[in-house]
Amino acid sequence: MKIHNFSAGPSILPESTIKNSADAVLNFAGTGLSLLEVSHRGKEFVAVMDEALALFKELLDIPAGYEVVFVGGGASTQFCMVPYNLMQKKAAYLNTGTWANKALKEAKGFGEVVEVASSKDSIYNHIPKGYEIPSDADYFHITTNNTIYGTEIKTDLDVNVPLVADMSSDIFSRPVDVSKYTLIYGGAQKNLAPAGVTFAIVKTDALGKVDRHIPTMLDYRTHIDAGSMFNTPPVFPIYSALQTLKWLKEMGGVSAMEKINIEKAAVLYDEIDRNRLFKAPVVNVEDRSLMNICFIMNDEYKELEKEFFDFASSRGMSGIKGHRSVGGFRASTYNAMPKSSIQALVDCMKEFEAKH
Amino acid sequence: MKIHNFSAGPSILPESTIKNSADAVLNFAGTGLSLLEVSHRGKEFVAVMDEALALFKELLDIPAGYEVVFVGGGASTQFCMVPYNLMQKKAAYLNTGTWANKALKEAKGFGEVVEVASSKDSIYNHIPKGYEIPSDADYFHITTNNTIYGTEIKTDLDVNVPLVADMSSDIFSRPVDVSKYTLIYGGAQKNLAPAGVTFAIVKTDALGKVDRHIPTMLDYRTHIDAGSMFNTPPVFPIYSALQTLKWLKEMGGVSAMEKINIEKAAVLYDEIDRNRLFKAPVVNVEDRSLMNICFIMNDEYKELEKEFFDFASSRGMSGIKGHRSVGGFRASTYNAMPKSSIQALVDCMKEFEAKH
Repeated sequence: MKIHNFSAGPSILPESTIKNSADAVLNFAGTGLSLLEVSHRGKEFVAVMDEALALFKELLDIPAGYEVVFVGGGASTQFCMVPYNLMQKKAAYLNTGTWANKALKEAKGFGEVVEVASSKDSIYNHIPKGYEIPSDADYFHITTNNTIYGTEIKTDLDVNVPLVADMSSDIFSRPVDVSKYTLIYGGAQKNLAPAGVTFAIVKTDALGKVDRHIPTMLDYRTHIDAGSMFNTPPVFPIYSALQTLKWLKEMGGVSAMEKINIEKAAVLYDEIDRNRLFKAPVVNVEDRSLMNICFIMNDEYKELEKEFFDFASSRGMSGIKGHRSVGGFRASTYNAMPKSSIQALVDCMKEFEAKH
Repeated sequence: MKIHNFSAGPSILPESTIKNSADAVLNFAGTGLSLLEVSHRGKEFVAVMDEALALFKELLDIPAGYEVVFVGGGASTQFCMVPYNLMQKKAAYLNTGTWANKALKEAKGFGEVVEVASSKDSIYNHIPKGYEIPSDADYFHITTNNTIYGTEIKTDLDVNVPLVADMSSDIFSRPVDVSKYTLIYGGAQKNLAPAGVTFAIVKTDALGKVDRHIPTMLDYRTHIDAGSMFNTPPVFPIYSALQTLKWLKEMGGVSAMEKINIEKAAVLYDEIDRNRLFKAPVVNVEDRSLMNICFIMNDEYKELEKEFFDFASSRGMSGIKGHRSVGGFRASTYNAMPKSSIQALVDCMKEFEAKH
């Protein structure tokens, strides 16, 4: 049976990423050695790092004045690196979900944190609007896609202070006007690579303005200056990331990807809105994520939740259980998710509706 | 031609680690999905994490009161995590090489650092002895194996303050009396796994004694409390680590490994001492590393260095170039290095001697 991998993360990757990564574990770049046992300073891996950084910049059309780094530690480590490097006295945060809230809390260890708005009281079912950002904030932090709650900020905001974005779960899903951001970061384990590598896109002239001592490994300048080779980088996840970046380019880049993602999401949201058994917890259509599509049972069908889960699972739908804070279901439809898998899920929903 | 992988790191891993890792990239634990695209919270990977932590403890005979964590960021991130978590006012460091010196420098951002002894002036060609450790130091930090210089502290020291050791490049090469240490840490990319995962063995009652604010991801308690699953861990390197731990157990564990490592190193050191073309820069026999065996041309044969490098390379010896600060050659002979590869290198040395 074909397994349709709707996991929220680590999540589905292109078939070519998986195949090429497996091949390199056995024989890397014709060296006769495994990718797992070669020096990161050898010319073969240096070429991988160089190409990955160049392609990352090319695909996101990153302008001059920005650098890309690959580090370890996950986006959770970025939650402290951001204020370490950028917060002098005060920072503003938009609280749109569990991860946004974690980033906000972490920053409190470094100075004054202003929560400009929060949708916590309504279980994060929308993206707050109409908030004011203090003009003396050193930066404004957003989480563009909220994996758990299925909301997404799908446009690049115009704000009055430097903009910082956690794009862990929607990077490369659409074109981004990087020039509007001072810093973009994310764990790679959604649209890019297996878990273990984190990216940061840094506007270099924003660095070096804080007074505090920054530990070497937490200073973006360390990694920029060393081309992400200050210490041994996470070799294998970076190799896999390169395979995904190549696939992205072949697919037509992020503009083509955005078009496909809009089409894919429409197929599922249309079914959720049409099907009498289900509804979307995210009411504002413009806030609905293209990456994590949440749906719950309509009130009068609540008792069918487990039955639908078992029904869909028996047809190969994997990883569709919603986060416990939302309940119901979540279909993560990252870049690598084919339309055919979304159609298979929609078919399940229709068939289940016909039974009831 | 058989390639003999003497790389200093990332470095040779057991064949079973490589094969099993490649297999899991294609189909993980019978899920029909790649190890690269499954949730770290799924039962299959939770089982991997549990088994890896349990086997890690079993193989090193780690006593009660200690916990093992897997994190990202490399040993270089540990250089700041150690003082973050353990330094109240003062720490003592033994400067035995580049990495020891980096750890020492990093600690200076957190309080007073005492360099109890250094072999820097003699290009780190020995392990200093007879130093005094201030009795009011919060801990004493050592680097047990100095990858670049080929020296190693091969016994567990008895000291008057809590002992902290970077064992990046000799963990699992011999039995360790963990009870003599407060903290042992290391990057995994020598004797354990591909790059991207870092281990720490922490005496739990040593934590929670500092006043400073510790960022969440830099606090050992975060990872202990969450069983190394606070955020998405580096899934693939941890899976590979488990394969190596299983291999280690099959090989008879760290006692058997120590015996083999002593035998292997003797074969090469004996040849270095015997061969009129070469000599060991590490003069004290008791300081010689069993993991990284450095050798340089004897003074009267200095001009043959490049010729030997080419000669050995043409016979499949890979990664034997010495670090630029020592020159000459370095054969890294980690656990997974077979005796046959060391014999092949010795044969090269003998053959080259016969030619000159």
